[in-house]
Amino acid sequence: MEKLEVKMASITSLSELIRKKEISPVEVINAFLERIEAVQKKINAFITVLEREARQAAKQAEDEIVKGYYRGPLHGIPLAAKDLFFTRGVKTTCGSRILSDFVPEKNATVIARLMEAGTILIGKTNMHEFAFGTTSLNNHYGHARNPWNVEHMTGGSSGGSAAAMAGSCALLALGTDTGGSIRIPSALCGIVGLKPTFGRVSKHGVYPLCWSLDHPGPMTRTVADAALALSFIAGYDPRDPCSKDMPVVDYYSCLTGDIKGVRVGVPDTFYFEQIEPEVKAGVEKAIDGLRDLGAEVRPVHIPDLDEASAATLLILSSEAASCLEKFHRTRPNDIGDDVRARLDVGALHLATHYVKAQRIRRIVQENFSRVLMQVDVLVTPGVSITAPMLEESTVRLDDDDVPVGVALTRSTRIYNLVGLPSVSVPVGFSQAGLPIGIQIAGRPFDEEMVLRVADAYERHIYQPSRWPGLS
Amino acid sequence: MEKLEVKMASITSLSELIRKKEISPVEVINAFLERIEAVQKKINAFITVLEREARQAAKQAEDEIVKGYYRGPLHGIPLAAKDLFFTRGVKTTCGSRILSDFVPEKNATVIARLMEAGTILIGKTNMHEFAFGTTSLNNHYGHARNPWNVEHMTGGSSGGSAAAMAGSCALLALGTDTGGSIRIPSALCGIVGLKPTFGRVSKHGVYPLCWSLDHPGPMTRTVADAALALSFIAGYDPRDPCSKDMPVVDYYSCLTGDIKGVRVGVPDTFYFEQIEPEVKAGVEKAIDGLRDLGAEVRPVHIPDLDEASAATLLILSSEAASCLEKFHRTRPNDIGDDVRARLDVGALHLATHYVKAQRIRRIVQENFSRVLMQVDVLVTPGVSITAPMLEESTVRLDDDDVPVGVALTRSTRIYNLVGLPSVSVPVGFSQAGLPIGIQIAGRPFDEEMVLRVADAYERHIYQPSRWPGLS
Repeated sequence: MEKLEVKMASITSLSELIRKKEISPVEVINAFLERIEAVQKKINAFITVLEREARQAAKQAEDEIVKGYYRGPLHGIPLAAKDLFFTRGVKTTCGSRILSDFVPEKNATVIARLMEAGTILIGKTNMHEFAFGTTSLNNHYGHARNPWNVEHMTGGSSGGSAAAMAGSCALLALGTDTGGSIRIPSALCGIVGLKPTFGRVSKHGVYPLCWSLDHPGPMTRTVADAALALSFIAGYDPRDPCSKDMPVVDYYSCLTGDIKGVRVGVPDTFYFEQIEPEVKAGVEKAIDGLRDLGAEVRPVHIPDLDEASAATLLILSSEAASCLEKFHRTRPNDIGDDVRARLDVGALHLATHYVKAQRIRRIVQENFSRVLMQVDVLVTPGVSITAPMLEESTVRLDDDDVPVGVALTRSTRIYNLVGLPSVSVPVGFSQAGLPIGIQIAGRPFDEEMVLRVADAYERHIYQPSRWPGLS
Repeated sequence: MEKLEVKMASITSLSELIRKKEISPVEVINAFLERIEAVQKKINAFITVLEREARQAAKQAEDEIVKGYYRGPLHGIPLAAKDLFFTRGVKTTCGSRILSDFVPEKNATVIARLMEAGTILIGKTNMHEFAFGTTSLNNHYGHARNPWNVEHMTGGSSGGSAAAMAGSCALLALGTDTGGSIRIPSALCGIVGLKPTFGRVSKHGVYPLCWSLDHPGPMTRTVADAALALSFIAGYDPRDPCSKDMPVVDYYSCLTGDIKGVRVGVPDTFYFEQIEPEVKAGVEKAIDGLRDLGAEVRPVHIPDLDEASAATLLILSSEAASCLEKFHRTRPNDIGDDVRARLDVGALHLATHYVKAQRIRRIVQENFSRVLMQVDVLVTPGVSITAPMLEESTVRLDDDDVPVGVALTRSTRIYNLVGLPSVSVPVGFSQAGLPIGIQIAGRPFDEEMVLRVADAYERHIYQPSRWPGLS
């Protein structure tokens, strides 16, 4: 066959060729390593590229497949993991200077599961320090750049994973999402990013930031790929105390393309405020698309969202300050200014305020439960802006100068508070050529419905028809 | 029949007579009201006695039973509820001056369930202020006194409920337990007190102190009565967000009297330290009794109990300070010195410390889980001392002067942290004639096993053969 066209590849398209032995994992990995070589300097997606290890694993995968031992649809697929997933024998920096030499002895559960499924770890991706930084400019390993326009940011904290996917450096990336860190860079880079239900995917071996808000999840080029990946990484893990023993379905097979009669709720407040007009228009057009597919779109009211948003920030900074307490105390000068400032604040919160935030959390969870008895999914803007320039610190929204970090996480972080599954899906581009996404959320452990709606949209209404050349 | 002998009555003994119409609920209530009249001045068990309402309800119960509508084993049984259970139209002070005129419009779920089962609310019992006071001397409604010796304390915070039961003023009492508040007064007053699993019994309509530590439960004269009562109050309640949808069994029918082969774990550290020799001897003798009944008694090691104990106190005071924040801020002078001092401390805790305590909680829960895979129940001292004199503020233990509040809760509060079911059962008396209890705990939602062991002990080894005359 001809040389593999990595730029337009997806897991589902490529795995079929691998299964039929029309292409070998060695060819796949060689092509992706070549692509990384070509674009890494431009987008800085990786902290570590595992060239030797990946080639070796590809050879092994090839051998297995030649011998008739085909592991399944992830066999031979290049995987990029945010640099806070523990990878055995491979440096895992968490984007921090303090952990620049940290080499875990074991794999995170999700890494182990993906390895077992035959994926090939091609690199560890760039990220905001401890997944807590607010500006990519402070990244200890340099800032990742948005493949659609390298003068713009990727968003964080899983920015390297998003850049790797949009930049065609891998076919599956892992991210973590504490306040939007999977969905934000996914929206800004025009890829699909899924934050599963809290407890759905094991956090064992994932460097923690906030125990009650952290969610690992897949970042992919298509909804189908996200569904496929989720089927492999979802499921109970006794080593993660937050993991829930709930049945896992074959999410890929659930993608019927049919959403007739599915009830889509569109919140009447909060989400459509403080938003760039182009993003708002893109989201509204996408909702029209869902209606055209037969979904029953209806307005819903969810109370207390401003309180929810504030409560999330308080819980986030308190838990982060507890989690990183030792480094904050013993090595403050090795922590970036933005992260240290957030830790300083988190360390001052009172227990009574934290408890109050948890009470608000409970109320808001009930608010969402009630609404999700009337509708099957909620569709909202995910990120209210397109990717800002790298050096921008505020954006102009509703005649206010809003800090970039606030604008980016405003509409994503509430789903961390309530733990609901939520996916960011591309819906098009701004006039400046930057991606716009929507956010689809659903009931706890009902990733099936969330992905079905997202896939129907992607299948029938819109799918990116090109990826950045970066040439 | 002769005049009802209230002093030795239990639910199971009396309900049989009521069912057979050998005694009428009117006679029952009249006898208990007479008893209350005779002893209330001596033990101050009640804040409110519902004489008129109880007589009226008794008449109605009599009518129903005469007409053949017998509701079951709680029909016509006099109920005393700690004065923080919401009772429709009946003053509910929470032991506080601030709520001295508070009259709820609805019943707590457990009150409603017991009413439906036919119990007759005879009074609201005395308690430590907001269930948070440390000394009964500060009670706004006077201190409850121990029926076994009125110069001694009942312990708290459900001291009025324990005094009512030991004083033969009711056949079922409701208490709440945040750090031991059911089990402590039960042990000190020689009755049975059950703290069920967290989530087993609804907290809806129970004035909160600490959301993650509060447990309502029954206080009775026998284990059989506790099992009977639990069957009625246990079960899912959607109005309590902490309520768990777990199956409820008929706990009374589970009391087989047979514990051959049941694995009884006796912790090798913590519980047998800082304990009065007489209490220690009583508990050890009780454990011998279980062995005589065929239980397999074995030492077990549970790590981190000192940390667990400290974490419980931190969570308790932080959540209490959040819960009572408004009163603490706006009406500090209407709060007792002991409670205000605890709130002052709770309001100063940092969120990071609270988060750390919750992490310890998780670890300790896992420690208990591991041990409870090897044994069926854990048997320990519950309260390490017998009832101190009312005015005592410290007790001498292991050559230290230990504050009474610390000594009382030391071995009970860890089960609030981990949420395991735990019952206090009388095992005898000290030489001074004060009751001694043991504590039997088990797996989450396995009240059945806990009660079966307690009942076997009570049935075959020891049961109080007399109750205080108070004449």
